[in-house]
Amino acid sequence: MSGPDFDEEFKRKLGELFQWRRDVRHFKADSLPDGMLERLVREASLSPSVGFSQPWRFVRIVSQEKRDAVIRSFEESNAEALNAYSGTDRDNYAKLKLSGLREAPVHLAVFCDEETLTGRGLGRATMPETLAYSATMAVYTFWLAARAEGVGAGWVSILNPDEVTRELEVPDGWKLIAYLCVGYPLEESDTPELSRAGWESSDDRSSWLYTR
Amino acid sequence: MSGPDFDEEFKRKLGELFQWRRDVRHFKADSLPDGMLERLVREASLSPSVGFSQPWRFVRIVSQEKRDAVIRSFEESNAEALNAYSGTDRDNYAKLKLSGLREAPVHLAVFCDEETLTGRGLGRATMPETLAYSATMAVYTFWLAARAEGVGAGWVSILNPDEVTRELEVPDGWKLIAYLCVGYPLEESDTPELSRAGWESSDDRSSWLYTR
Repeated sequence: MSGPDFDEEFKRKLGELFQWRRDVRHFKADSLPDGMLERLVREASLSPSVGFSQPWRFVRIVSQEKRDAVIRSFEESNAEALNAYSGTDRDNYAKLKLSGLREAPVHLAVFCDEETLTGRGLGRATMPETLAYSATMAVYTFWLAARAEGVGAGWVSILNPDEVTRELEVPDGWKLIAYLCVGYPLEESDTPELSRAGWESSDDRSSWLYTR
Repeated sequence: MSGPDFDEEFKRKLGELFQWRRDVRHFKADSLPDGMLERLVREASLSPSVGFSQPWRFVRIVSQEKRDAVIRSFEESNAEALNAYSGTDRDNYAKLKLSGLREAPVHLAVFCDEETLTGRGLGRATMPETLAYSATMAVYTFWLAARAEGVGAGWVSILNPDEVTRELEVPDGWKLIAYLCVGYPLEESDTPELSRAGWESSDDRSSWLYTR
């Protein structure tokens, strides 16, 4: 079987997609077109998974009560994180906007079903964490496919995962991987917001390949 | 700042890339063109990372002694995995080819530097596992960019990560995320090999989105 040919033009644009995918924390109020979220989740299901276990579970949060509970969890965790910094770091951290939870039209939680029988355990006896990594790659496929549609996602990891999991009333054995804000970004950029804000700069990209 | 426009043609091809990316275990002997691996690793460095921590570390294994040690670790773990199955599962597992470690021209290990100071811990106080997830997304960017070049990657998780980490003599604090076989695939397909081999089938792709 012969696959599609990916020409130079596609590869150039794919590089642009990687370059312009951002962690978005500033959203417009506009909602997504009907069916877009479903389409992006289906695309995300083409992600690699250990033993073809397909452990990703996407949960859209529409309940205002649950959204508010997540916002509270973020605010508490963010206040604690601030308190762990001091001096200039503390001043700088306080200025960062680290989530778009209040504005984003869509809240989307991604879980890993740690008890799935799909794949019959293949490939994860010695490295069970590859199941969570599989769900992580589905988050990223969603993110890339969304960006190609002009839709931004922001990954909020500053929250209490146990609290959020309990609040969302998901089945036992589902582990929270990512909590995403999704919507149209207020601005686009090829540079991470933390870099633009002066928090952290880009490492030397040629320095990550070692030889043994 | 206004970003690139991703047109319908690009989005269609991006879907094809997701659809035709495979976990490859059958490789041609041909080596990669000079500079290709370096280019793919640089592209992978555009991946998202918690707090812009950029924790991915790529290690190309050229030492035959070290490659052999990894192959031994795979073979031992694979024999143990086989023994954990019984009946038809055991027969079927025995027939699967689960790595291309002997043929693949490139062995590439991907680590997460758990002790990196880059990003100053931002975003990972309550979910420290997001550091490993960041390195996982870099594996996946590498994989997608490679596939766009016609290069296949296969993720070998059936090995003893402590043994492999020790064998590769990497700095303290580096955690093994993935061990990849990389090279030109013998065949292309839009269907996972485990599905073609009858081990596991595709779940219903519309069933992964829940509402709360």
